[in-house]
Parts: sequence; C-alpha cells; structure tokens
Amino acid sequence: MILKRWLVGDPLKTAQARHERLSKTIALAIFSSNAISSVAYGTEEILLVLVLAGTAAVAWSIPVSLAILFLVLVLTISYRQIIYEYPEGGGAYLVARTNLGDRPALVAAAALMIDYVLTVAVSVAAGVAAVTSAIPSLFIHREALGLVAILFTVIMNLRGVRESGKFFAIPTYFAIGALVLLVVAGTLKSFSPSSLILPTNPIMPDKATESLTVFLVLRSFAAGCSTVTGMEVISNGVKAFRHPESKNAATTMIWMSAILASLFMGISWMAYHYGIVPKAGETITSQLARLTFGTGVVYYAIQIATMMLLVLAANSAFAGFPHLASILARDGFMPHQMATFGDRLVFSNGIIILGIFACLLLVIFEGDTHALIPLYAIGVFVSFTLSQAGMVKRWLVKKGTHWRKKLLVNGVGAFTTGIATIIIASTKFMQGAWIVFLLVMILILMFQGIRSHYKAVAEQIALDRRGSRPPLPRRNVVIIPISGLNRAVVRAVDFARSRPGEIRAVFVDIDPEESAKVKIQWAQWGGGVNLIALPSPYRSVLGSLLGYIEEVLEKDHDTWVTVVIPEILPARWWQNILHNQRALMLKAALLFKERVILTDVPFHLTR
Amino acid sequence: MILKRWLVGDPLKTAQARHERLSKTIALAIFSSNAISSVAYGTEEILLVLVLAGTAAVAWSIPVSLAILFLVLVLTISYRQIIYEYPEGGGAYLVARTNLGDRPALVAAAALMIDYVLTVAVSVAAGVAAVTSAIPSLFIHREALGLVAILFTVIMNLRGVRESGKFFAIPTYFAIGALVLLVVAGTLKSFSPSSLILPTNPIMPDKATESLTVFLVLRSFAAGCSTVTGMEVISNGVKAFRHPESKNAATTMIWMSAILASLFMGISWMAYHYGIVPKAGETITSQLARLTFGTGVVYYAIQIATMMLLVLAANSAFAGFPHLASILARDGFMPHQMATFGDRLVFSNGIIILGIFACLLLVIFEGDTHALIPLYAIGVFVSFTLSQAGMVKRWLVKKGTHWRKKLLVNGVGAFTTGIATIIIASTKFMQGAWIVFLLVMILILMFQGIRSHYKAVAEQIALDRRGSRPPLPRRNVVIIPISGLNRAVVRAVDFARSRPGEIRAVFVDIDPEESAKVKIQWAQWGGGVNLIALPSPYRSVLGSLLGYIEEVLEKDHDTWVTVVIPEILPARWWQNILHNQRALMLKAALLFKERVILTDVPFHLTR
Repeated sequence: MILKRWLVGDPLKTAQARHERLSKTIALAIFSSNAISSVAYGTEEILLVLVLAGTAAVAWSIPVSLAILFLVLVLTISYRQIIYEYPEGGGAYLVARTNLGDRPALVAAAALMIDYVLTVAVSVAAGVAAVTSAIPSLFIHREALGLVAILFTVIMNLRGVRESGKFFAIPTYFAIGALVLLVVAGTLKSFSPSSLILPTNPIMPDKATESLTVFLVLRSFAAGCSTVTGMEVISNGVKAFRHPESKNAATTMIWMSAILASLFMGISWMAYHYGIVPKAGETITSQLARLTFGTGVVYYAIQIATMMLLVLAANSAFAGFPHLASILARDGFMPHQMATFGDRLVFSNGIIILGIFACLLLVIFEGDTHALIPLYAIGVFVSFTLSQAGMVKRWLVKKGTHWRKKLLVNGVGAFTTGIATIIIASTKFMQGAWIVFLLVMILILMFQGIRSHYKAVAEQIALDRRGSRPPLPRRNVVIIPISGLNRAVVRAVDFARSRPGEIRAVFVDIDPEESAKVKIQWAQWGGGVNLIALPSPYRSVLGSLLGYIEEVLEKDHDTWVTVVIPEILPARWWQNILHNQRALMLKAALLFKERVILTDVPFHLTR
Repeated sequence: MILKRWLVGDPLKTAQARHERLSKTIALAIFSSNAISSVAYGTEEILLVLVLAGTAAVAWSIPVSLAILFLVLVLTISYRQIIYEYPEGGGAYLVARTNLGDRPALVAAAALMIDYVLTVAVSVAAGVAAVTSAIPSLFIHREALGLVAILFTVIMNLRGVRESGKFFAIPTYFAIGALVLLVVAGTLKSFSPSSLILPTNPIMPDKATESLTVFLVLRSFAAGCSTVTGMEVISNGVKAFRHPESKNAATTMIWMSAILASLFMGISWMAYHYGIVPKAGETITSQLARLTFGTGVVYYAIQIATMMLLVLAANSAFAGFPHLASILARDGFMPHQMATFGDRLVFSNGIIILGIFACLLLVIFEGDTHALIPLYAIGVFVSFTLSQAGMVKRWLVKKGTHWRKKLLVNGVGAFTTGIATIIIASTKFMQGAWIVFLLVMILILMFQGIRSHYKAVAEQIALDRRGSRPPLPRRNVVIIPISGLNRAVVRAVDFARSRPGEIRAVFVDIDPEESAKVKIQWAQWGGGVNLIALPSPYRSVLGSLLGYIEEVLEKDHDTWVTVVIPEILPARWWQNILHNQRALMLKAALLFKERVILTDVPFHLTR
C-alpha cells in the first residue's frame, strides 16, 4: 500500500475530475506524440521494402512518401469534421456505433484495441532502437530496456492524466524541436554543393532479391502507412480540451498534421538525397543525424529526443486504450471493472492490462520494430475507414447545413482510407496481418459473449414487475463443522443458538480415540446441540462434510443450509499459513452450492 | 482432478494402511539405494581432492577409503542396536528427543531435513552425470534432465509407498547387479598381467596446485564421507518391515552394508590400480566401465544402471523427508497440514515441498554434483553423532541386559562419527558447509517459532476449566451492502429480516443519478429496512463500507456486526472474472475485523 501511494500518489476526489482539462499546448504534447513519432520509423519502413529491388528502386520512396502526405491531408480534413460533430469525443467505435450499428462498431473497437497494444510495442521498440543506434553496446539489452520503458509509462499513467501531461510536455517539445532542427539543417545542407556523400555501408548494394513490381511499391506504401497511425488520437480526446473544446481540438489537429507532414517529407527527402538505405543496428534518422551534425552532442541530443518522443507515443496509447475499454464496459462489451475510475481518476485496470499485453508483444517479437510493423497500421486503417464511412452515413441521414460538402470530405476520406486498408491487408496479409484479423474476430466474439452474459444476468436478477419477491426456503438447517472443542467452536455454537433454525454440529470421524474425546467434551459444552459423527474411509474431511451437506439439501428441497464456520484468526497475517487451509477450502467449495448460506464466526487471537 | 487421478491413482482407504508392509527384498531396494548409490561419486570425490597435490598423492585414496570402510563398519553395528531398541522407527530426531531433549533433537531434525533435500539434488545430479558420461551431447541439457527426474520421482511417490516399492525393486537389483559385475570383472582383470593401461587424458598430469598436507588428506576423507550417507535410512523405517520388524530390518542392514562396502572398495581399488583420475564430463565409474568392458552394450547397461540407482536414491529421500516432517508436525514444530495423509496414504505435502526445494537446489548449482558435495554429508554426520550420543545416554540411564557392551558399541559410534563431523565441518566450512550451519539455525528458529505459536493458540482457545463460555456481544447490527436493486439483494434482505437484529442496508453514493433511482426502488422493495447512503469522495466503495462498519463497531463495544452479502454466482466458473471482485475484496477485508460475522446469501444464475 505504501509502495502504491509512493508510486501512484494520493487518491484524488471525484470533484477534482472536471479540473483535469488540458490547454492546447499540453494537449498537443499528449495527443500528437503518437502521430509525430511515427516519422522515426515511417521512412525506414518504406525504404526497407524498396531496397529489396535494389538501390535504384529507392527513388520510388519519393512518390510513395507523397502518397502518404496525401493521406495525412485527407485525414486531417476528415477528422476536423468528426471533432466538430462529436465534441464528447468521436472515437471510431462511437462514430461507427451511432451511425452504422453494433457490428461495425465492434470491428472498429477490436481493431483499435489491438492497435493500441501495437502502438506501445512498436513505439517502445523504435525508441530503444534510437538509443542502441547511438550506443551499439546496448543492442543486446534491447528487450530489457523496452520492458523498463513500458513499466515507467504504466506508473506515470497510474498517477493520472494531468500530472503526466505536465510531465510529458517539456520532453515532447524538446523532441519536436530536435527533429525540426535535424530536418531544417539537413535539408539546407542537402542543397549546398558539397552535399552528395555516399552512405558508408548500405545493407545490400544492388543485390536485388526482388524485381520492382507494382506489388512491391504498394507494399512499401503499406509499410509507410505506419506513419499516419495516431492521427485519430485527438478526435478521441476532444472532451479533455478546455472550452471551446471542438475549436481547440481542431486547431491542435492542424498543428499536429503540419508538424508530422513536414518532418516526414523532410526525412524522406534527405534519405533519398543522401542515398541512405536501412542498416542493421542503426536507424535511418540516426544515420541522417550523424551525416548532418557528425557524432557529437547534437547527434546524441537528437537520438535521446527521438527516444523520448517514441516513449511518449507509447504513453498516448495509455490514455486511449483504457478510455476505449471503459466505454466498451459501459456498453456491456467488457467486464464492468474496466469502467471504474481508480484512486487517481484514471482507469487503472485498463492501464495495467495494456502494459501487460505490450510487454508480452515486445518479448515475443524480441523488441524488433521491423518484426512488429506487418501487424501494425492495419487496425488503425480499419477504424479510419469505419469512422469515415460512419460519417458518410451520418450526413446522408442527418443532412443539415453544408451537408453535401461535408459528405464529399468524409466520402473522399472513406474512399482513400478504404483503398489504403485494402492495400495494407493484401500486401501484409501473409507477413502477419492475418494474426490481426484472427485477433479481431476473437475479440468480437469475446465482446459479444460478455454482453450476452451480462444481458442474461440482468434478466435473471431483474425484479418482478408485479412486485412478487423471490421465494425463500421455508426450513433452515444450521450445520457447524468442528474438528475438536475450543473457545472458537463454543462461540460459534452459542452464536447459532441465538438464531432460529435446527442446529447440528458435525465432525469427521478419522481417529477413533480423538472422536471419543470430542463426544465426551460435547456433552459438557455442546449446549444441547446434536453432534453428528461422519465416517470418512478416505480421510477426506472436506469430502465427508460436502457429502453430508448435499444429503441434507437433497432430502428437503425447501430447506436452506446455513454453514456456521468457527474460524480462528491469527494475530499476524503470516501466521495464516499455519491455519485456516481447511476453512478456506470448505468456503470455496460451498460458495457454489445452491441454498447454502455461509456464515463465518471469527475468533481473533491476540498473540 | 482427472489429471491428478491419472497421475496419482485412486484414493486408498485408511484401513488399507496396515497392509503397506514391505518384505526384506523390497525393503532393501527402497532403503538401500541411497547408501549404495553413493559409490557412484564417493571415490571420485576423494580423488578430486587428492589430485590437487599431483598424481602421486592419488595413492592416498587407499588409506582414505579404508578409513571410510571403518566408518561403514562402525555405523552398521551401532545402527543395528538402534533398530532393536526403536522398533517403531529410530530416526535421529526421535532418538535425540527421547534421550537428549528438544534442542539436540531439533538440531538433528534440521540437519536431516537439509540432507534429504541434498540427497535428492546430489543423487539426481550424479545420475544425470552417469548419462552424460555415456552420451556427451546431453551434457548441456543436464539441468533439464535433472528436473525431469525429480518430477518423475515426485509423481511416483504421490502414488504411494508400496506401489513405488514394487516399481523400484527390479531396477535397484538390476543396478546392484551391474555394479557388482563391474567390480568383480574389473578387479579380476586388474590381477591379470596385461592390466596396466594408463588413462588417456587425466585432468592435471602432475600439475600439483597444492602440496600433500594432512589437511588435504582430511579434506579428501571429508569428501569421501558422502559415501556413507543414507546408511541411517533403514533405522527410520523399521515400522515398514514385515513382522518381526526389528530382526528383518537388522538383517537388511547387514546386506546393505556388505554391498556398499564391497562396491566402494572395489571401485577405489580399480581407480588406484588403473591410475584413473577425475575428468571433466566423464565420471570415474564410466571410465572404469569403459576400461573393463569397452564402449559396448555392457558399458551402456552399467551407465543406465548407475543412473537408475541414483534416481532411486533420490526416491528414498521422498520417503524420509515427509515422514520426518509429519513427526515434527505432530510434535508441533511444523505446520499441522504436514501431518495429514493424502488420498494415497502418503504425506503428499512433504513430498511436494521436498520436490520443490530439490529442484531449486539443482537449478542454483547448475546440476553439478561436485558443487553440491561440500554442502552434503555434514547434515547426515551431525545426525549420526546425535543419535549415537543419544544411545550412549540411553544405556547410561536405562542400563538393562548387556548394557556395558551396548554402551561401548554406541560410544565408539558416537566418537567416530563425532570426529568425522568435526573433520567435515572444518575442512568444508568455507566451501559451503557454512550455508548448512546457517540453514540449520534458521530451521531451528522456525521450528521453535511454529511451536510457540501453536502453544499460544492452544492456550487462547482452550476451554475454561470452570465451564464459563466465551461471552457473546449483546447487540447485533445486520448490514447489507448493496449497489443497486435486484433479486439477489431482495433475497438477502428477506433472509436478514427472518433473523433477529437491527437491519441496515447501505450503499455507496458515487453517481447521484444512480442513487436517486436506488432510493425510489428501495421504497417498494426494501421491506421497511433502513437504507443508508454513504458518501465517497474518492469513489472507493470498499473504503466507505469498511469505514462505516468500523464506525458501528466503535460506537458500541457490545455489538456484533453481521454483514450479509448478496452474492450473484454465475452458472459457469469462468464467468466469475466478470463478477464478484468487489464481494471477494470485501470479504477478504472483513475477515480480519473483530466482532464481524460474514454471511453470504447466494443467488445462483442458471445460464
């Protein structure tokens, strides 16, 4: 508990919730790190595919980057409309649910949940790659470094959104500043005459393993689509902005897209201009930073900044995932406990679950960004498409002012993201996207199973409209299991005698000598209560007791059995391993029997 | 449960216990494997020390082996007297306790428990070494092989002593036969003229790192003392023999010692004669078997036999450890649950605990016999000395027929084993024996702590001699925590209303809208019971409830609080993760409060 307080902080009152609103500057830091940090791996993933067709094919990185720039533009305009239309927060799940119905909404929710986990894993892996590019000796520890980063983020998030907001704003701006510096300085340098330096040791110098086909270009586009992941984050969090929420959110969206677009295009251009290709153990950005500034203070600052930005991107998923889970829980698609705020006004359960799954993914894929990328983006694009399609449906139904223009915008958005989704799914399917499809289906089945369970429960426990109360069994048999006589037992017997019902003390006859002693003592202390000795050829105390209770329940279906357990409770918690194993087992076994009421009569020891 | 039945077998009746008696042939298999298997590493450990002073020093292995032979002789005669004197089983703990008192008895018990764990670890490690000598490619898997062997032995022992007896008799005799064959054939060959073959590649050919001092010879004697470990096993298990128990046990003891002595001396002689010294990756016995029979069928049979014998030695600890633990538990020095028979008439808890600790040890010491040896033997010799000393005291006090002769025998035993103990402790102290001393002290503190706890409990729960019953609080406040209204709640309210006491329903006010609804429904369904709304600024349902209950308890020290929990129980077990978290937490928190009685009123769902 003390550890928890120190790590997580003191509990916050519910009344404090409304003050946890974010200014635009802090919101940009929290919500944009996910999108902007993608520039650290986006260009690299494009080149990794193109280089398969030889260094000449690398020139295709520019058109592919332009296609992705177009995607950024379309998404920005489309999402601004969602922000204005859904000031309460317009996640893909909500938009799809209100416009398209439950099934598409669950597809969007499942896709998003998987992508949140992947965001954490990919970002942390890429962040660690930024560090190991600078300090190659850490390369073998990348998994451990990644796990530490996730743990750190989990703890920060359990502290609550506002404090982590403040905490993360400074490094985010530092990181954006560092990357802007790299792109500006590098681009300027690239136009100076002395700029054409050849890369030192590219992976496969013209050893093309595949030919330059349309499919390969599309694959490189699909890989590059990881750049636009995270653009939806602001639309989910409109409610967290200060008043006027939608306007502030829309403005922040523009800033974010502008930064993302210019950094991405800058890096793609530089990589093309300098002929840089991916290299094992060093990222493209690291290579660019080395070329531009040399391996000095500025280089290390850029690497650290990149790493921090990527950890912050992971952090943004820790806001999104628990929030989505809580909405799903409120709609009955996830366990109820996901919907409850923790001490610090954050959805603690969601944060912890996301942390666990991200760690698992990181370990399974050995902390390798490239291995994770084929799974990534597909989920985001499915949800992009569904929310744009939902908006299209909305304008068609709702109409309202300028609906034709709005329909066109979201129509273009739906079409573009739909095409991108198909490209990603078809080119990445065999490399891992199938896992995502499988998981989406499993998650949907889980959502539906949970919902139908809660529905069935609600029906079964619903109160009768005519006011009739559920019947109570007429008789009540009180059973006190004992193994010997002591003050705890006598107290339980006296307690039972003070209430109505037929009382029977039972003990399991294992050792005849012991049994005789119990019977003699019972005559003095039993208070007139019947003592029943149960035979137990197999020495199972629990089995004999359960058998007897079942017998009583069977004999008369209109009887309760109240089991009164005399429980000896030690003064110190660790002494429990010396006690209570039997009482615990009995309680666990009885809990699931019908018409059995469990009553614990405690006897507390003082030393 | 089905898995358990398949692995462990059907439960046995208590009445079947007395038939689980062993014939001499089966008893020899069960009780002697521990002692006899030591020949697989005893000679090797002696040589490993001597070789430090160069190959010339190896000649000292013969006098050292003779000293150990003398120990075997002394122990055999001494233990025969214990067997006749303690037909109920004369473990060192029992002999020390009845003659020397609690403290020496606990030292013996602690030393023995540690040695049982070491017996399993050392034997399994040596058994695996026998296999990896024959198949060197398995060497890197030795830890995994050892763990599998321990798991196998645990399961066999959970099946019960008699079946495992039968199961183990055949391989034991096969193994003894194989080793006898090796010693006889090898010794005969050594007297033929063509026998002096030099070893192929000894570890350190005359690269002496230490000089041949008295200390070194004593150290090699201490290492060789691991050979006599396990000789006490028969004296612990006299009760398991058929009638006449003591006579049968004493005869079996002679057989065992004869086999042990001849195998050990044979191997030591052969190793000396052929000039064989220890070699990394191959045991002495393996080298001898190769020399004698060549690397053929007979060689492999001997290696497999050695391995089996060592696993069976580990098995014998699985009879001894749980038995000792159960005696300690009956005397109150170990948790009570160690004293109860399992389904199959074996002390299942002890078997499982021994298995876990042996696995731990094997993993910590990386499955290396030599690394474990410095810890070994010291515990056994402490217990040897204590039981011999106990017998000396016994004869002095009890006297009886021929007591002077008997006194002399056990006196020589106590003196000899005492000297050996001092040698082992002083020569091995820095190499690991200190760990054993530390553990013995920790175990003794644990034994005493457990005993004094049970004593304090017994005093606190003892019935009053004058017949006065423990007082019951006068008033009874019934509290029903609810979070909304449903059939389960109504049932719990109706149940509470059918018994005496002042009833209050309480709910935690988190969401004002929800609270208003609860209040309206309560008017219809509450049955006149008071409804109390608790404020909860920090949203902690549990905290508010606990606070309220504490308040009620504080206000009137002569009141019980009966907490009636309406519990919804799902139809299928896995659905529990969707329910009951809150009820479980509440119950866990309330269990340790005084004057609080917990009552579960279940409402079972059907789908």
